[in-house]
Amino acid sequence: MKNYISVNDIDNLSEWVNNARSLKTDPFAHKNLGQGKTICLLFFNNSLRTRLSTQKAAMNLGMEVMVMNFGSEGWQLEFDDGAVMDQGKSEHIKEAAKVVSQFCDIVAIRAFASLTDKEKDEAEVVLNGFVKHASIPVVNMESSVGHPLQALADAITLAEHNMKAKPKVVLSWAPHPKALPHAVANSFVEMMHLQDADFVITHPEGYELDPQITKNVQVEYDQEKACENADFIYVKNWSSYSDYGKVLNQDSNWMMTQEKLGSAKFMHCLPVRRNVVVEDTVLDNNQSLVIEQANNRTFAAQVVLKKILDS
Amino acid sequence: MKNYISVNDIDNLSEWVNNARSLKTDPFAHKNLGQGKTICLLFFNNSLRTRLSTQKAAMNLGMEVMVMNFGSEGWQLEFDDGAVMDQGKSEHIKEAAKVVSQFCDIVAIRAFASLTDKEKDEAEVVLNGFVKHASIPVVNMESSVGHPLQALADAITLAEHNMKAKPKVVLSWAPHPKALPHAVANSFVEMMHLQDADFVITHPEGYELDPQITKNVQVEYDQEKACENADFIYVKNWSSYSDYGKVLNQDSNWMMTQEKLGSAKFMHCLPVRRNVVVEDTVLDNNQSLVIEQANNRTFAAQVVLKKILDS
Amino acid sequence: MKNYISVNDIDNLSEWVNNARSLKTDPFAHKNLGQGKTICLLFFNNSLRTRLSTQKAAMNLGMEVMVMNFGSEGWQLEFDDGAVMDQGKSEHIKEAAKVVSQFCDIVAIRAFASLTDKEKDEAEVVLNGFVKHASIPVVNMESSVGHPLQALADAITLAEHNMKAKPKVVLSWAPHPKALPHAVANSFVEMMHLQDADFVITHPEGYELDPQITKNVQVEYDQEKACENADFIYVKNWSSYSDYGKVLNQDSNWMMTQEKLGSAKFMHCLPVRRNVVVEDTVLDNNQSLVIEQANNRTFAAQVVLKKILDS
Repeated sequence: MKNYISVNDIDNLSEWVNNARSLKTDPFAHKNLGQGKTICLLFFNNSLRTRLSTQKAAMNLGMEVMVMNFGSEGWQLEFDDGAVMDQGKSEHIKEAAKVVSQFCDIVAIRAFASLTDKEKDEAEVVLNGFVKHASIPVVNMESSVGHPLQALADAITLAEHNMKAKPKVVLSWAPHPKALPHAVANSFVEMMHLQDADFVITHPEGYELDPQITKNVQVEYDQEKACENADFIYVKNWSSYSDYGKVLNQDSNWMMTQEKLGSAKFMHCLPVRRNVVVEDTVLDNNQSLVIEQANNRTFAAQVVLKKILDS
Repeated sequence: MKNYISVNDIDNLSEWVNNARSLKTDPFAHKNLGQGKTICLLFFNNSLRTRLSTQKAAMNLGMEVMVMNFGSEGWQLEFDDGAVMDQGKSEHIKEAAKVVSQFCDIVAIRAFASLTDKEKDEAEVVLNGFVKHASIPVVNMESSVGHPLQALADAITLAEHNMKAKPKVVLSWAPHPKALPHAVANSFVEMMHLQDADFVITHPEGYELDPQITKNVQVEYDQEKACENADFIYVKNWSSYSDYGKVLNQDSNWMMTQEKLGSAKFMHCLPVRRNVVVEDTVLDNNQSLVIEQANNRTFAAQVVLKKILDS
Repeated sequence: MKNYISVNDIDNLSEWVNNARSLKTDPFAHKNLGQGKTICLLFFNNSLRTRLSTQKAAMNLGMEVMVMNFGSEGWQLEFDDGAVMDQGKSEHIKEAAKVVSQFCDIVAIRAFASLTDKEKDEAEVVLNGFVKHASIPVVNMESSVGHPLQALADAITLAEHNMKAKPKVVLSWAPHPKALPHAVANSFVEMMHLQDADFVITHPEGYELDPQITKNVQVEYDQEKACENADFIYVKNWSSYSDYGKVLNQDSNWMMTQEKLGSAKFMHCLPVRRNVVVEDTVLDNNQSLVIEQANNRTFAAQVVLKKILDS
């Protein structure tokens, strides 16, 4: 495998999940694989789970890690071809990506959606700039349109807790005070396309995700109805996609409650706003898988890095 | 040992000091102890000595280290139970502490006093939030009310330079342009409770430390008198405790001078403001132990981490 | 070797270049040399290449690395002897340098010119403060007046691509929207003094570099004439030295073009502003050595660290 850019780079989800679960039982089994290899983690945005879990995954494989907050520690990047760089940007992605490639063996990038410029967000200018110009493998640590390390951790968590051949899985929108990107929801949907499940998305009207991603997944605008008899309910806020980046609804009736959850397992990528996105009771009860999802971030990253190092 | 939160977690000070002095003679003697173990250093405030010495201590034991400036690199934390998180804070300490526990084996926290909310500061909301919700050992890298790694380094330094069965040790307040926390002074006092010494605290009226910490230690408001025949004078500014966080006095007569020092050894935790807290002559003369105190920070941290790893 | 402060610390340039080229063919050949040794990288300014290449170089030698953004993560430093520190600065360089020396074996410093106070810049207060007060070797990662790691990487790159006994090398000024320091140009000139070459500097009038550095190097104010028959053209902007830190000229006719370049190799330290300093065509063509210069930063740093560790 060259790059891990989207869920679609997973050639065989169940094999990857099994590999990850096997790494989880013996994290240091491949400690020699990464000897003499270095990964650079470049953050254009804040991070807790991704920062720590990707470092840990790399160290479990014996790699060296260099972490850089590109925005505050490096130079402001230009992404436009042919730009006359006489304003605030002092380095072009062409040089930055090639230069970083001289100092490490794998580069991982976090660059969130702006939510103001749909075209640029969809073009993934930062991530794709590195993919295009770097000479080393690139890993997506959350880009404008996807968060495939999260989706892989979610798949591992589902596999660990699923008792059924075809579980009912619900992706439910929830309210949030700020406009949030679509990346987590997108990658979760893409990952569910690779699973055998009864999969339903529920959200208020106007919050339809990109139809090129959701494809033929059933959308149910009645949240309670969607949640009936669910085995897993994945909750996440996102801003409007059609009215790009706008907050159209903050109706607290969409908050996930223990009542709506029923006997389903609760999932969320974190960070989560308590009593806005989901009530305390849900998070504090043993139906919540959120900490295990976070834990599985390490093994999702580790299986990705191992596949890159192996190839 | 589970956590190192305060000086009161030291079960036998002289044994710890001896262990630290032994590590100092052979820092890599236990290089295998930390193999495969990771420590996270989470900074909510700036740091020089603590940042570098705790990293060095962990590396001396063969541990991996992940350093994170939580405030600027992560998410703003909510600490109140039951909060409706619809404002600026995007993650609750409940999740943050549990999540960090998935990625490392020990977590160390620096979170200074606000000096504006005495109740919250005394409740140690950040440090205790991690203690309560983390599933791994927690180390205090300076909290609202204590700096026990500094106090342990101070104890090592005292032991290295003390020639007497019962030395005279003075803790002297000094002026400072800004309001500073009580953490260093508190932990030094708590550490002195574990020593056989003639211990005196001197400060202007109104600067009494928390009586629950000072207990029956002698307070002498006349600085010169307090310093007479001292073997060690530890100088430190703190703001008022009773008139919480206020600067009541900036009288430069309280600055430590070579004349007041006499033949005593000079101690300070650093950073120190020259010619405000203490005159140049004192710092530049060989009675000053400040650089050795800083050096001993490594071995204080190393003995703490070793005890956690050993247990 | 104790410190690497300027190009003048290179005792035998061709030997150093050969050592670096040999490290490049086998970067891990001396992996045991740095075992148990730690380097601190202290940044007072932003950095991409220097940050990553110096880390990589140290790791190639088996060293541990601690990276610190001193400005934002530590304390504001006072550099004046005898200062009464009652303003914003909370730690004196005397303590900071001695303290850092307790926690590592080598310290590397980046501290750019202010371009506002010529006297202070030329005194190299930050770098020389560490040199004076640290008890460990100090490496210059770009100071007010020099960038000797860059110059050494440039020498390696020249050696790799030079086919002649005495090549023609041109250092050409180029326009830039901001006032930039002289460090890179100064160190390049100093390095050229150690080479057998036909060396010419070209810039608009008023942009003469420090004559104590340029000495008897030929200056040609006609850029096209200077570039005729060049083998290597090194392009770099700098602000005026005589009218210190001022931008006197932004004439885009000074931008390097493919036409002026002719068949010469193009060099630049990066980051570079495309279509301001140099046109796209030059950077995107195989006469450009800029990525190889960046790559050689690792081996320049590695040869410096190796020489310090060896001595």
